[in-house]
Amino acid sequence: MREDFEYREDPAPTADTLADGGLILRNKAFLCAPTMRNWMEAPGNSLYPSIPIGSAIMAPAVCEVVASRRDDVPVGTRVMAITSWQDFQQVDTSHDVTPIPDWMGDVDALGLYGINGVTAYIGITRIGRPKAGETVVVSGAAGSTGVTAAQVAKALGCRVIGIAGGKRKCDWLIEEIGLDGAVDYRAGDVQGQLAQLCPQGIDVFYDNVGGEILQAAIENMAVFGRIVLCGQIASYNDDGPVPGPTNMMRLIYGNIRMEGFLCLAYADVFPEAREKLREWKEAGRMIHREDVRPGFEKLPETYNALFDGSNSGTLIGIVEE
Amino acid sequence: MREDFEYREDPAPTADTLADGGLILRNKAFLCAPTMRNWMEAPGNSLYPSIPIGSAIMAPAVCEVVASRRDDVPVGTRVMAITSWQDFQQVDTSHDVTPIPDWMGDVDALGLYGINGVTAYIGITRIGRPKAGETVVVSGAAGSTGVTAAQVAKALGCRVIGIAGGKRKCDWLIEEIGLDGAVDYRAGDVQGQLAQLCPQGIDVFYDNVGGEILQAAIENMAVFGRIVLCGQIASYNDDGPVPGPTNMMRLIYGNIRMEGFLCLAYADVFPEAREKLREWKEAGRMIHREDVRPGFEKLPETYNALFDGSNSGTLIGIVEE
Repeated sequence: MREDFEYREDPAPTADTLADGGLILRNKAFLCAPTMRNWMEAPGNSLYPSIPIGSAIMAPAVCEVVASRRDDVPVGTRVMAITSWQDFQQVDTSHDVTPIPDWMGDVDALGLYGINGVTAYIGITRIGRPKAGETVVVSGAAGSTGVTAAQVAKALGCRVIGIAGGKRKCDWLIEEIGLDGAVDYRAGDVQGQLAQLCPQGIDVFYDNVGGEILQAAIENMAVFGRIVLCGQIASYNDDGPVPGPTNMMRLIYGNIRMEGFLCLAYADVFPEAREKLREWKEAGRMIHREDVRPGFEKLPETYNALFDGSNSGTLIGIVEE
Repeated sequence: MREDFEYREDPAPTADTLADGGLILRNKAFLCAPTMRNWMEAPGNSLYPSIPIGSAIMAPAVCEVVASRRDDVPVGTRVMAITSWQDFQQVDTSHDVTPIPDWMGDVDALGLYGINGVTAYIGITRIGRPKAGETVVVSGAAGSTGVTAAQVAKALGCRVIGIAGGKRKCDWLIEEIGLDGAVDYRAGDVQGQLAQLCPQGIDVFYDNVGGEILQAAIENMAVFGRIVLCGQIASYNDDGPVPGPTNMMRLIYGNIRMEGFLCLAYADVFPEAREKLREWKEAGRMIHREDVRPGFEKLPETYNALFDGSNSGTLIGIVEE
């Protein structure tokens, strides 16, 4: 893991060579998102960016503008942008940068209002579309996207069950987040546990995990159930293809819809998502934890906490020690 | 196969013991549908009927009423009903029987206007929902449901590619049915063949087959594509679970919807389906072949033609030699 990364010093970009429309950003904090693992795969899949070996790791970041040749983004502005693991970043006029409103802190901008939170809102409201009173199950429920998806479903009046690894996370989901039940996948027989907690079947399954967890949920879907495919973290560190669900027939005779999505395809929903998440947060109905780890040079170890289960909440690496 | 069946003679039901609301039906013709293979599985799956060992095989049938204690269904009426492989069938008042209009022949009632044709119409119009000009791919395209689904998509103005086994079937799909292209899965590299025929990707994939064919189609789906799961005939004769698609991530980053359905859940669409199919047939845009095989005692062999690829068109076993 560590040995796959190299620390390198290069000269910082300088303002005097900055072209019209260009910006120099100082990276302050990086989101560590599971999907970045897909960006690190070999090229050949045109739908994902592919980070060339030897280049810095791309990541959603909060940055400060330190040099600007754009009138609408003056020096000192805080922005969200996809940059990469380096101190400074020069971007041209085509690069998306989104100014961060004053009320939103650096960590919030990558946390509840960042890509994970917004993804959760879109997945529940646009793909799963649960009705009040329906049963919603969320896998990876203690994770950043999962816990937000679960609370969005709760806010919409659903009965919500979370799937997470270990008793500590499950207790937290019930006691602190207020879910109606939790399945500890480390205790085994996820299919049986779901059957007990969802005797009427699962109406909406929000899946961050894939693999055996998806298979177990499919077995428990209610007729006309919907499966929201958000992520497949179970497979991101595997080299070959992982087995898919072997029970496709259940999708047929259950009239079940399974739908994947990328939040960027629903960019028009972002403002609504941030507004609703803020409203629920202010009403005390949207708990969000960030796992903030300092140290630019420790970013590889910080990132890997996503995969060894040691993180709790949105994982954010901040540049300063 | 043959040795799994037993021919048995029992006394026929008699009219004098028929209760109020009861009917005695004489079975004239049976549909041999792939999904009946699922009905023959062991019990334990409450969503399918399970035919007990030693009982007659359930099947959609065209029957003649030979004794009636129902005013609305007099003796001599032709009806569609799910009955079983026997000459006569006594049914009570709770059993669904649908009178067949005069314009519809026995074979048509099980063919174009039967469960396969209606399923195809519903799958395309209610699940896949292609727009004119989109690319639709149909697997099992030379089969009863497939060829109807392909022609419904053509009638809606789509570009349609069929997948079938062997050059003869593929030629037929292009030359007789008028499809825009065909993939012979026996020639191998289905994924590559689809890529060549669908350079912009597949907008709607109507799948009757599952397994490797589904996997190959997923690799070629266009962004916001839709997969209609109609059947998984590739797996019906396997004992264990068959591998599912291993490329679920593509559903995520392609924003792809995969949705299964059973036509019985859309019973309200049946009249519309039969009306549109008749309209297109009369306009010469709906070719439908029936593979009619006589002989009650040969029903097991007739049925098995679904799985050895030797049937061409809707497979129907008629009782009389």
